[in-house]
Amino acid sequence: MTDRNVQVEPAPGPAVEEQTLEIVERKGIGHPDSVCDGVAEAVSQALARVYLDRVGRVLHFNTDETQLVAGSAAPAFGGGEVLEPIYLLIVGRATKSYEGTNIPAESVAVEAARDYLDETFPDLDVGTDVIVDVDLGEGSGDLQQVFGEDGTVPMANDTSYGVGYAPLSETERIVLETERQLNGDFGAENPAIGQDVKVMAKREDDQIAVTVAVAAVDAHVPDIEAYEAMVESVREEVLELAREITDRSVEVHVNTADDLDSGAIYLTTTGTSAEQGDDGSVGRGNRANGLITPNRPMSLEATSGKNPVNHIGKIYNLLSTEIARAVYERVDAVRQIQIRLLSQIGQPIDQPHLADAHVVTEAGTPVSAVEDDVSAVIDDELDGITDLTRSVIEGEQTTF
Amino acid sequence: MTDRNVQVEPAPGPAVEEQTLEIVERKGIGHPDSVCDGVAEAVSQALARVYLDRVGRVLHFNTDETQLVAGSAAPAFGGGEVLEPIYLLIVGRATKSYEGTNIPAESVAVEAARDYLDETFPDLDVGTDVIVDVDLGEGSGDLQQVFGEDGTVPMANDTSYGVGYAPLSETERIVLETERQLNGDFGAENPAIGQDVKVMAKREDDQIAVTVAVAAVDAHVPDIEAYEAMVESVREEVLELAREITDRSVEVHVNTADDLDSGAIYLTTTGTSAEQGDDGSVGRGNRANGLITPNRPMSLEATSGKNPVNHIGKIYNLLSTEIARAVYERVDAVRQIQIRLLSQIGQPIDQPHLADAHVVTEAGTPVSAVEDDVSAVIDDELDGITDLTRSVIEGEQTTF
Amino acid sequence: MTDRNVQVEPAPGPAVEEQTLEIVERKGIGHPDSVCDGVAEAVSQALARVYLDRVGRVLHFNTDETQLVAGSAAPAFGGGEVLEPIYLLIVGRATKSYEGTNIPAESVAVEAARDYLDETFPDLDVGTDVIVDVDLGEGSGDLQQVFGEDGTVPMANDTSYGVGYAPLSETERIVLETERQLNGDFGAENPAIGQDVKVMAKREDDQIAVTVAVAAVDAHVPDIEAYEAMVESVREEVLELAREITDRSVEVHVNTADDLDSGAIYLTTTGTSAEQGDDGSVGRGNRANGLITPNRPMSLEATSGKNPVNHIGKIYNLLSTEIARAVYERVDAVRQIQIRLLSQIGQPIDQPHLADAHVVTEAGTPVSAVEDDVSAVIDDELDGITDLTRSVIEGEQTTF
Amino acid sequence: MTDRNVQVEPAPGPAVEEQTLEIVERKGIGHPDSVCDGVAEAVSQALARVYLDRVGRVLHFNTDETQLVAGSAAPAFGGGEVLEPIYLLIVGRATKSYEGTNIPAESVAVEAARDYLDETFPDLDVGTDVIVDVDLGEGSGDLQQVFGEDGTVPMANDTSYGVGYAPLSETERIVLETERQLNGDFGAENPAIGQDVKVMAKREDDQIAVTVAVAAVDAHVPDIEAYEAMVESVREEVLELAREITDRSVEVHVNTADDLDSGAIYLTTTGTSAEQGDDGSVGRGNRANGLITPNRPMSLEATSGKNPVNHIGKIYNLLSTEIARAVYERVDAVRQIQIRLLSQIGQPIDQPHLADAHVVTEAGTPVSAVEDDVSAVIDDELDGITDLTRSVIEGEQTTF
Repeated sequence: MTDRNVQVEPAPGPAVEEQTLEIVERKGIGHPDSVCDGVAEAVSQALARVYLDRVGRVLHFNTDETQLVAGSAAPAFGGGEVLEPIYLLIVGRATKSYEGTNIPAESVAVEAARDYLDETFPDLDVGTDVIVDVDLGEGSGDLQQVFGEDGTVPMANDTSYGVGYAPLSETERIVLETERQLNGDFGAENPAIGQDVKVMAKREDDQIAVTVAVAAVDAHVPDIEAYEAMVESVREEVLELAREITDRSVEVHVNTADDLDSGAIYLTTTGTSAEQGDDGSVGRGNRANGLITPNRPMSLEATSGKNPVNHIGKIYNLLSTEIARAVYERVDAVRQIQIRLLSQIGQPIDQPHLADAHVVTEAGTPVSAVEDDVSAVIDDELDGITDLTRSVIEGEQTTF
Repeated sequence: MTDRNVQVEPAPGPAVEEQTLEIVERKGIGHPDSVCDGVAEAVSQALARVYLDRVGRVLHFNTDETQLVAGSAAPAFGGGEVLEPIYLLIVGRATKSYEGTNIPAESVAVEAARDYLDETFPDLDVGTDVIVDVDLGEGSGDLQQVFGEDGTVPMANDTSYGVGYAPLSETERIVLETERQLNGDFGAENPAIGQDVKVMAKREDDQIAVTVAVAAVDAHVPDIEAYEAMVESVREEVLELAREITDRSVEVHVNTADDLDSGAIYLTTTGTSAEQGDDGSVGRGNRANGLITPNRPMSLEATSGKNPVNHIGKIYNLLSTEIARAVYERVDAVRQIQIRLLSQIGQPIDQPHLADAHVVTEAGTPVSAVEDDVSAVIDDELDGITDLTRSVIEGEQTTF
Repeated sequence: MTDRNVQVEPAPGPAVEEQTLEIVERKGIGHPDSVCDGVAEAVSQALARVYLDRVGRVLHFNTDETQLVAGSAAPAFGGGEVLEPIYLLIVGRATKSYEGTNIPAESVAVEAARDYLDETFPDLDVGTDVIVDVDLGEGSGDLQQVFGEDGTVPMANDTSYGVGYAPLSETERIVLETERQLNGDFGAENPAIGQDVKVMAKREDDQIAVTVAVAAVDAHVPDIEAYEAMVESVREEVLELAREITDRSVEVHVNTADDLDSGAIYLTTTGTSAEQGDDGSVGRGNRANGLITPNRPMSLEATSGKNPVNHIGKIYNLLSTEIARAVYERVDAVRQIQIRLLSQIGQPIDQPHLADAHVVTEAGTPVSAVEDDVSAVIDDELDGITDLTRSVIEGEQTTF
Repeated sequence: MTDRNVQVEPAPGPAVEEQTLEIVERKGIGHPDSVCDGVAEAVSQALARVYLDRVGRVLHFNTDETQLVAGSAAPAFGGGEVLEPIYLLIVGRATKSYEGTNIPAESVAVEAARDYLDETFPDLDVGTDVIVDVDLGEGSGDLQQVFGEDGTVPMANDTSYGVGYAPLSETERIVLETERQLNGDFGAENPAIGQDVKVMAKREDDQIAVTVAVAAVDAHVPDIEAYEAMVESVREEVLELAREITDRSVEVHVNTADDLDSGAIYLTTTGTSAEQGDDGSVGRGNRANGLITPNRPMSLEATSGKNPVNHIGKIYNLLSTEIARAVYERVDAVRQIQIRLLSQIGQPIDQPHLADAHVVTEAGTPVSAVEDDVSAVIDDELDGITDLTRSVIEGEQTTF
């Protein structure tokens, strides 16, 4: 058994699925805050890789502060234009030389950001619609961390906190999958759908209302009829998707702020409202599991852009979710589990000050009956903590 | 009785005070994230006032995106120096002219930011230790809002959500009052204490551990002995303060990351870690009530810097807290109350889509017995919603 | 005959070719000041074209203030890298909307700058080695100028001054053609030669010393021998070129600041010293004819980036050179001619306050004998002044 | 006698005073280009002093690239306001640490710039009307220069060129003294006169026309009558001043671009056109002697902001003027003298490659008669070259 401080106890209230009111939100990948999250995380991965590549370990850096200043644009049916580019400033710290080896941290950051934008936003011309600037200060030399050397586990850089849970509620799944579908297969077939998709769902008992705001891409919208058709097709798609997830009553509203009579519709040239008036920054949107869930405990720590080796807030937010999923999958009779990890500054990150689990079990199974199994999974996952870092660096984890 | 959609029900779990684990944090006013919050809110108030002054109504603006890029400094006992200034960029939108009247939005923003920094940070030379820059785009003209005209209630600009609660738990009070005391009377008497104070408390059952990080101001710290004395005096002060609040066991740790042997201590020239390596931005730190409370539902909406007339996220976060306090004060037998307000885009802000209360009552009093009283207070507070806006503009509300 | 104020008189001293000391310099297209000139002029042309295209006339703009902040780089034999990108800020004024038509001035500026850099610097990755930023204020609406409407001649916007001359002296030709050859055919065959070529020549009586500084491009320089070979090939090429131009004694020095022993050589990754430590700005380098010639009167007015319709400093600098060339070609017995044009604010630009010519004639021909012919050419060229504007917009004129 | 390469010969043409057309210009200290010159030079002096103070020698730096981006303003009789602050970016290179000593180069630069602006512009609120930003890269360590050590003479850092002359012509004196008077005693008594004064004079034979543009300061101009009175008082003052300098015919025009009927007058809030639409940069305005003189040979090298120890362009521009003045004062029968100094990279700066003098003597005195005296003065001044550096650092030399 573990010598870690693991506590397993019943959840203090009912499962989220049984609460009377539930609110869930997701800012899609094209929302200005998510743009910053995505850029910050892409920069972070690229820096980690260049450090590993050149000096065999990840050195001190932190790039969790990208700021986006909106541009201005004149969208128009059939294709408008950006008038003033979006300005995106990558802020942070990075080690720029180490034992005689130069690390081109700023160049790497700019390239990673541009590549990310290029891949993510087909209608955004990274050359001229957005200016990517960078200002990375020197990191403190003494914060350099060893990673990749014979299994050493890094020390926590702070007293911090992570929280995760599983499974997603129906409402949460609807929100998450709606955005993924609109920015995935359905979006690929419907180029009029921009990346700036925002999904909010409210469940009152068994009534779920999903509100979707979709930025249309003007080049693919010849006229108002095409716009209306796009809106309707999104509504139908989301409704169908929701019905596959839940038996509850679902209604879907798309672009409710439109006023068709006055021509006030949600039309963009680039697929994101960052082109006109909506600024953004890192850590203001989705939590590490991709959702904003006021019904669940949340960490305020920004996950995107942080150093994945020793930034304990990032690691514990991702790991707690991973542990929760693992418990839910592997331990029978667990209906809902929430994991909290609390770090201790200066201690190995696989030795949290406290790991606690709040469990809701199937009727008839007391929590005590699953306690050992839950503890074992937690222990197991903490043993593999450096694998998580590796998978973050390789881009296998989403952080927003 | 009200025709608003108000729901009052028992809280799903025990009061926070009775939960086994509680974590609470506050970033002091000198933390880089709080610096941004404070600047953003000061700018917001100044803009609201200049609009009222010149055109009699608050026009569209939003300044919730200040970004701080850390400087570099060489602190030293007796007084060091800033080597490279902090850079602070005020980002947002503001209406710059209205029916022929110019609004000097950028000049007002810079002045408000500088005044705020000047008043808040006695050891920061606003002239040379920090560069305050500004980039305010034009707001959309059609988003202009009426305020100050014969009682009209503005319409919600979004579907958003606010959450508040009362009373603070003991641990929460300790955290909040510790920071206020160190940045208040105690700090005034001890100029060696900088504004960048971070307080974290963890309660496990009846054991409270308070961890405080205090940036010392080098000009007032002649040597290591003086530094150690400052640290000890903070520890004693916080311990005393905590003991006045709770009968639980309390331990206090100050500047635990120090390594006195190697001389690695928390010394600064300006009183904030923004001088060296710590970037910041708005909305990443304290919630509207001044705390970070993973045990409580939180809204992720940044409150500081937003337009206090029609930004529903700001208004509902502040109002839900105000309502909770009012209920707790006015309704007997309420031990804990949490208020959620959910807006409806395009509807008057005093008519939320839903206002719901989760109540924990004194043993022996069912929630149903207080339901009407609670509803009446909620109703009453919603009636006075525009007073809240007024008090925000006048700087009477803290937002972080 | 003309009713313009044209004066033709003998030059006050001997022809430059006969003076005892002559100094001539040219900063090549890759010099940081020239980079700014080139970008500013490319932006200016693009803006003029978009105005003509959209509203049929060139509106008020001025983009003669690009600033380059050097990056940092680590060049190395066989290929080094940029560590911190060059930052290039396009500053100026532009009209952004006109009678309901939007002009995407900032987007056009960024695109023009990037295209120019892309075409001009094969070893500079415009995506990541340089950040192109833009800050164009609104121009004053009342400065809008008509161009392209039935032959109207614009009014001078200032009291300004232009000066030009012909022919180039031998030393001047050597300097100009050296740079053009190194950045032209010879450079195309020798990719190790970067665009940052600086040529300085000093003639003392009949001794011409040419000093060339050439930034080598590391990807094409495998080792020190290759570098030395490149330097020697440049020396030979320039010597040969000079000998075709002059019978005087010529010596050529290339990269004289090198210290081969210590390895201090002029190696770059991008072909320009802007990559490491050399900042630049518009109007600090070559005059409108491509040279810096302390032996000749020079205007300090920056030519690049200015509005070619009504900026009289730009127009008169280009036109005076064009007139001088025309006189030299068309009027026999003229050995050297210098033209000065002085504008009068508010008057048509084809009516200068004064046009004066200083002429050196062949021995035996008095200036009075050519006076009428010279006047006629001047008159003729002034009649065609709007053609000049047209050819500037079409990029047919070099301005630096 | 000297072993320096000094050449004294007759000027190739007549003295400027005898040429038929003369054009002279001065951009006053409040002109946007001069603002940049002044800031760059103030920064340079402050850096030189901090280096001397901390490490006993001036280290490598160069700050000759300040860029000003204009703000926007709404001037009004009796007092208007700045709407958007001026943005001023100090660009350059500076050594930031030396043998373990930190040099707070950026903080020093910002402070020097702000102090300079504060002292120079009484109506400019440095806190809010202008944002002073800074971006100083690291200088190359191996360019460090010794200064202040037992008389060592630094080596030239480049092949460069300086030119100076004496005495000023009447027209030149009128231009220079007009600006100094308007920004001096007369301005002090007439606060309505802003610092942005531009003076241009044209002499055709014995007719001098002086054109002055004066930015009025709105707080001191209650109405149009006051404005007209200010303009008239300037006209009279300049006329009187000119008549003390010359017996030639003089006419003076002030603010000729005004259109009183339409209310288009030259009114500002801060005293400089930088507040609205006029950008600026270093080295685009006055030469080192304070004038723009197309009738004289000029160096294009920016003097302001450069390192006064080893930047040979700066030193030779200042020194050549100082030598010319010394010759003119000390050697009888010299009516006009022009000095050119040409450096040799890597050689001591007191050993120019060539120093040549073009002399116009009184009628009846051949140049050969003064040659030895002129040479001796040149020699003498070159011997004292390091005194010049000292006086530049102490702010005793004007550079623009």
